[in-house]
Amino acid sequence: MTAVPALIERAAMYFRELQDRIVSELERLDGGTFREDSWQRPGGGGGRSRVLSEGALFEKAGVNFSDVFGQLRPDLAAPMPGSGLGFRATGVSLVLHPRNPHVPCVHANFRRFERTDDGTGWFGGGADLTPNYLRREDAIHFHQVFKNTCDRWDTTLFPRFKAWCDDYFFLPHRGESRGVGGIFFDYLGAGAERAAGRAEAGISGVEADPEWLFALVCGLGDAFLEAYVPLVERRRREPWNDAQRRWQLLRRGRYVEFNLLYDRGTVFGLRTAGRVESILMSLPLEARWEYGYEPAPASPEAITIAALKARYDWANSQP
Amino acid sequence: MTAVPALIERAAMYFRELQDRIVSELERLDGGTFREDSWQRPGGGGGRSRVLSEGALFEKAGVNFSDVFGQLRPDLAAPMPGSGLGFRATGVSLVLHPRNPHVPCVHANFRRFERTDDGTGWFGGGADLTPNYLRREDAIHFHQVFKNTCDRWDTTLFPRFKAWCDDYFFLPHRGESRGVGGIFFDYLGAGAERAAGRAEAGISGVEADPEWLFALVCGLGDAFLEAYVPLVERRRREPWNDAQRRWQLLRRGRYVEFNLLYDRGTVFGLRTAGRVESILMSLPLEARWEYGYEPAPASPEAITIAALKARYDWANSQP
Repeated sequence: MTAVPALIERAAMYFRELQDRIVSELERLDGGTFREDSWQRPGGGGGRSRVLSEGALFEKAGVNFSDVFGQLRPDLAAPMPGSGLGFRATGVSLVLHPRNPHVPCVHANFRRFERTDDGTGWFGGGADLTPNYLRREDAIHFHQVFKNTCDRWDTTLFPRFKAWCDDYFFLPHRGESRGVGGIFFDYLGAGAERAAGRAEAGISGVEADPEWLFALVCGLGDAFLEAYVPLVERRRREPWNDAQRRWQLLRRGRYVEFNLLYDRGTVFGLRTAGRVESILMSLPLEARWEYGYEPAPASPEAITIAALKARYDWANSQP
Repeated sequence: MTAVPALIERAAMYFRELQDRIVSELERLDGGTFREDSWQRPGGGGGRSRVLSEGALFEKAGVNFSDVFGQLRPDLAAPMPGSGLGFRATGVSLVLHPRNPHVPCVHANFRRFERTDDGTGWFGGGADLTPNYLRREDAIHFHQVFKNTCDRWDTTLFPRFKAWCDDYFFLPHRGESRGVGGIFFDYLGAGAERAAGRAEAGISGVEADPEWLFALVCGLGDAFLEAYVPLVERRRREPWNDAQRRWQLLRRGRYVEFNLLYDRGTVFGLRTAGRVESILMSLPLEARWEYGYEPAPASPEAITIAALKARYDWANSQP
């Protein structure tokens, strides 16, 4: 007889291993070395933050692994599925801010959350792309990789996760999306859309099986490098000038606005006294806000903004 | 018989005139010219935004006047004193981000809010100083000017407003204040501390008189230039280097964090579909986030951080 570790133990092992694999590939791409900080959470558990600053390719890149447990604050626990205050959460999250304005910024996060009192548990996560300059073929590639992966489990998944991503990474005060989207999901295995206050989707029965969901999340985590690295290889040698750098810094200002005004992970982390340096690792090294900036009509900058105000079906588009 | 305009009309006239006076003095100091945008609010009213970008003295300076009216969103109206949804609000607000890291950043805001259905009305506002490098004599001067002004009305005001400022401009996730403080108040004339959910203070009976409060607010508005301009004159010729610039950008990152995570004016403005460019005018031209940055022990940067974690009684200190 072989003893099989609990699902959340295996999830933690997978996320830790995925952090290693992604960091190793990013170091190969950049040529630099990530700094590593292992940290303990006073309330229970800890993590491993890895950051590359001012590398040749990445101006700032953070890949964080954490596995924490303890007691939830009642006001934060109340809206979640399940009951009790005990919890354990493990996941990997990353944000990459390249130096070259033509290489897109990217974010990804995969996590397992369990309430330890009643055994309710779910997966959450996603991956989304934030180019400074729209390149149709890049958006298409990124979306197609995640569509193909989702389709291996259930062809209804990608359209759900794609729409959820468009809804989530949206700045209402700007009337624009943070980027060209990708996938986003939460509470998978615990009511998903219903638990998130969204319209109910046609969820297949198999979605109640945590092992099926774990395999899906591993598939999506494994797909990240395939979705992103070709875009880096394609864009990293494109020349750029001061005006393009300025535009990149303005776009990063929008990224900061989203993360501090709307991102639930950031706000949840700061309210639960998480490790501030790891939570705000997602912010760019530099950002800029100019009053009343308007890109020239039909310029690449204006075309990008227009694309961020639309919602394209990239996965089914022709490059 | 002379017809006396309603209080809020006179407040709007005062705030507009104060904007003129402050902009004129800032233009004299900088040598540059503020751009002016007059705007209409779709729901009623409008304003006049004035911004100086990349001036010799100010990297970004915004001074905004507004006078808006209409209907409040019920969820935003509920926690306020008074009843009904009709409102009119007028005020002036400014944020100045100097280029030289030795010249402190400053914010000030003075406003009148009225609920037009039941006539409930109040004044709010304040002024606070955010140096990158602590200079005791600057903090003392700034606090003393506002203390002396408050004392002409009531000597209990300054200690109340100073403590309120320390409580308000605080970043819990960093465990530090945004700057060295100044004054902050809200709901003056409508329950003040009680309406803001604060412990009740010993409020004098005269505080129920809107005319007395209006005179106080004009006194504080008039004191702004006296509190700030001497600091500019004192510091603007101090030389600075790249390391000090980098520190300034990191401090501005904290400023962005405060405004987007905690500032009620910013969040209220964005939720009520205010003019985004005028609301986010408060953000610096550039800001920076470095992972795990720690100033050298006992450096001017470390001494400044230590002061932001304390709460000094600057008004009664010796330079």
